[in-house]
Amino acid sequence: MSYDLDKYIRSIPDFPKEGINFRDITTLLKDPEGLNEAIKSFEEALDGTEFDVVVGPEARGFLFGVPVAYNLGKGFVPVRKPGKLPGKTISQSYDLEYGTNEIEIHEDAIEPGQRVVIIDDLMATGGTVEAIIKLCERIGAKVEKVVCLIELEGFDAKSKLGDIPFKGLIKYPDA
Amino acid sequence: MSYDLDKYIRSIPDFPKEGINFRDITTLLKDPEGLNEAIKSFEEALDGTEFDVVVGPEARGFLFGVPVAYNLGKGFVPVRKPGKLPGKTISQSYDLEYGTNEIEIHEDAIEPGQRVVIIDDLMATGGTVEAIIKLCERIGAKVEKVVCLIELEGFDAKSKLGDIPFKGLIKYPDA
Repeated sequence: MSYDLDKYIRSIPDFPKEGINFRDITTLLKDPEGLNEAIKSFEEALDGTEFDVVVGPEARGFLFGVPVAYNLGKGFVPVRKPGKLPGKTISQSYDLEYGTNEIEIHEDAIEPGQRVVIIDDLMATGGTVEAIIKLCERIGAKVEKVVCLIELEGFDAKSKLGDIPFKGLIKYPDA
Repeated sequence: MSYDLDKYIRSIPDFPKEGINFRDITTLLKDPEGLNEAIKSFEEALDGTEFDVVVGPEARGFLFGVPVAYNLGKGFVPVRKPGKLPGKTISQSYDLEYGTNEIEIHEDAIEPGQRVVIIDDLMATGGTVEAIIKLCERIGAKVEKVVCLIELEGFDAKSKLGDIPFKGLIKYPDA
């Protein structure tokens, strides 16, 4: 079954800066129907994918990653900004439009050989997801699929994912 | 049914600074049983509470707030750090050990008269929860209950909550 998730998304012009049309997911989250259909759509996108654990980045990746992990009987592993995870971590930097960013994962969060699904709210340039893939591969895990609620197709992030399957549940032409 | 959630929590000494025994929930999250029992315990804590919407703060409040909202057929409203929410917000500051912090909510996220449940991972001093209660009350909503995965009892945060019912699912004497 396919849902029209787009109707729950609010677009806010010129946020966080002029010229950006921000796709606001909070209107989906606060609507019980919207939240329900979004979680079900993530699960449908993972139908047929065999995996052990869901990985999602702070903060908005937590919103969808945990309910999907819970519903499918898996665990959830958070990827966070530097200094937030209390155990031993490995970190990965990635390029932004100006400067670089860094994310971390607990080095014992995933076992070598485990199969991972990455979930996030939005795929724009794909920089965050690419860095998460690198973290998982450095641990020796295999990323089986990436699913995001929103895909901004104009950034062509898919080219960064190699042969890892990707699904964007809502597509906008934004770049 | 009561679960022994404590066994899934890892304690990490001297994080983020010397003398603090950090209660790490990532070992619960990554364990399918641990995650399952935690979400079920939140739901049991809300059994008999009538409410319309779940509110949770960035970032770790998202981890439990969304699956509980989803399972109970409610919407989820995020409380975030300043500058993250794209729509019109109201903000509330609160005191830290040194200095102050500020959080925001979309002013149209909750309707006046709606009944709110606040969910977070950890209750220490209660400063964040107290600020969220103020935000909800300024909108005209009523906070029916606060549930946190971990309660650090030594801080006596309950005294900040007035007559709002509170439940900590795992209790430590930490202060």
